[in-house]
Amino acid sequence: MIEVPVTLAGETYVVSIGDGLLAEAGARVRALRPAITRLPVITDTNVACLHLPPLVESLAAAGIAAQPIVVPAGEEAKSFAELARLVDALIASGVARSGLILALGGGVVGDLAGFAAAITKRGIPFVQVPTTLLAMVDSSVGGKTGINTTAGKNLVGAFHQPAAVWADTALLSTLPHRERLAGYAEVVKYGLLGDAGFFAWLEAHGAAALAGDSAALAHAIATSVRAKAAIVVRDPEERLDIRALLNLGHTFGHALEAECGYSDRLRHGEAVAIGMAQAFRFSVAEGLCPPADAARVEAHLAAVGLPVALPLPPDRLLGHMRHDKKKTETGLTFILVRGIGKAFVAHDVPRERVQAFLEAEARARATSC
Amino acid sequence: MIEVPVTLAGETYVVSIGDGLLAEAGARVRALRPAITRLPVITDTNVACLHLPPLVESLAAAGIAAQPIVVPAGEEAKSFAELARLVDALIASGVARSGLILALGGGVVGDLAGFAAAITKRGIPFVQVPTTLLAMVDSSVGGKTGINTTAGKNLVGAFHQPAAVWADTALLSTLPHRERLAGYAEVVKYGLLGDAGFFAWLEAHGAAALAGDSAALAHAIATSVRAKAAIVVRDPEERLDIRALLNLGHTFGHALEAECGYSDRLRHGEAVAIGMAQAFRFSVAEGLCPPADAARVEAHLAAVGLPVALPLPPDRLLGHMRHDKKKTETGLTFILVRGIGKAFVAHDVPRERVQAFLEAEARARATSC
Repeated sequence: MIEVPVTLAGETYVVSIGDGLLAEAGARVRALRPAITRLPVITDTNVACLHLPPLVESLAAAGIAAQPIVVPAGEEAKSFAELARLVDALIASGVARSGLILALGGGVVGDLAGFAAAITKRGIPFVQVPTTLLAMVDSSVGGKTGINTTAGKNLVGAFHQPAAVWADTALLSTLPHRERLAGYAEVVKYGLLGDAGFFAWLEAHGAAALAGDSAALAHAIATSVRAKAAIVVRDPEERLDIRALLNLGHTFGHALEAECGYSDRLRHGEAVAIGMAQAFRFSVAEGLCPPADAARVEAHLAAVGLPVALPLPPDRLLGHMRHDKKKTETGLTFILVRGIGKAFVAHDVPRERVQAFLEAEARARATSC
Repeated sequence: MIEVPVTLAGETYVVSIGDGLLAEAGARVRALRPAITRLPVITDTNVACLHLPPLVESLAAAGIAAQPIVVPAGEEAKSFAELARLVDALIASGVARSGLILALGGGVVGDLAGFAAAITKRGIPFVQVPTTLLAMVDSSVGGKTGINTTAGKNLVGAFHQPAAVWADTALLSTLPHRERLAGYAEVVKYGLLGDAGFFAWLEAHGAAALAGDSAALAHAIATSVRAKAAIVVRDPEERLDIRALLNLGHTFGHALEAECGYSDRLRHGEAVAIGMAQAFRFSVAEGLCPPADAARVEAHLAAVGLPVALPLPPDRLLGHMRHDKKKTETGLTFILVRGIGKAFVAHDVPRERVQAFLEAEARARATSC
């Protein structure tokens, strides 16, 4: 097992990564809250079938009664309506402000449950038990929680750090390959934004991790978590430019997701893969990045089976970018690159340059979502 | 003008108290955000008629276009449905995460607008312009924002400190007397919980403040704000017992409000007045407080026209207390007193003692809400 401590605002929690952590949940909850007798467990309809029974058993063995709260599977659950229902269920569970809540699931469950925990009684501690690769590398650190609105993704939310994260790599064996690939895109991101050595390691071992090599998987997850933690501790509430680096591929990616209606046609991780490839191509077009680096990024993403392009109407994509949270009063903000491992924040990128780039992409490619 | 600085989590904002601050709003916004051209202003249907026009004019004179967002007047606006509408309106306004939002109104507008500001784009700075005495003394400091659910009041919310508070005492002249009285109950609270000298000052000058003596009013507000700030800075997120002192009268009071359906039959401040009188009587019954102090509290509250008792079914009130945020896993928490100015936090108060007290109250009195 690998343990990565994360210290934010004077409080430390640990991200534990390893095989079989779900079975230890009861003992781990007991260690955090010696007097606890019941525990709200938030999960979704898909995860409930797979991973809720062993969790409930582990809790029961420690004398803790699970109080499962099951939300619908899918991004649609990140709505005000589901949030209101979830908060009502938490209050009805009788959980105290000094109690604990457990979130079992992927990014959607983590974002929704974390936000509900953040605002119920103005903040109840919660533990994340991520069940997807994406959630293990991306949602374990940073404390971002939230829901979507009709105007865009994650436009409503709170910063709420977990009390602990237990990433059980064994759970990933039940994940569909496409889902694992989508999570892998975020792993690649940590190489691309600041660690060329890690990207080179992924070129050599990424396929093995994706195929289920547990040592490779644990190394990839732990390296990503450490990389994210190193960034987040320097900018916990995204008020500086440091944390913005984590958005490599996300301004392009969010626009693609919004245009595809946040549907199964395009997973978040797939959108990030395309967005990262676009960030490299845009950086090349702006004369910032060697074309060979962009080609290497595209080659690795394509080699593992991730998409690198999805030309959609440029005016529609720009419309979605108008509501980007990273937008300042004067222009768009992008994470651009000077090469692999050399990302930086570019403010006030002229809308016309982005438009020209997207139009060139649309002319050059012919896919559709 | 009196200025009270409040420093929380390393950031300082100023509560300004004085005549005519509303007319200075444009210049004050300009000082906070030199480049601003438009500003979302959240208010309610009642306040919009009275105080929105001069605010819009002041902003316009400074070259800032107000973007009014008007919510329904009354406690019912503190709902998930209104919150969702408000957040959508804020996103549609185009306000940036580094921008500013202004909340113009009483406690309901402050709680709702502050919560919307806290969660839109995970936190946008906001300025409070309180229009009631209650909001000036109670909502200016502490950063508590939130909404109600069917299970109880303020069970959902966030801590979000304002960027500034501008309390214009001139606005209080338009306030109905009953509303001013309800706010006065919170002023009295600061004397009762830790400042016997201030309570004695209120016995001598409180009636003058209520009658509109602006110097007395400003002194009463500033003393209350300072008292609250001194407590909140020591316990910003209510994780210690210190901040709980501010709940003097509130555990009893919230139960009364819940039982009256948060209606106009019982204002929050009226519930607090009754709750404080009950906290003193309960403390006397428990042998903690001299009966003469409880009598003095009742006498002053009654002298200015505030209620001191409202016997409702004890079992119903205890039911509402079950959902109190201050509840621990093992019992109820009350703020009790050893005398005027000597409040303390009492944990794990046996339910039976509270029940016996409420039953004695019900037998002794005959009012109903």
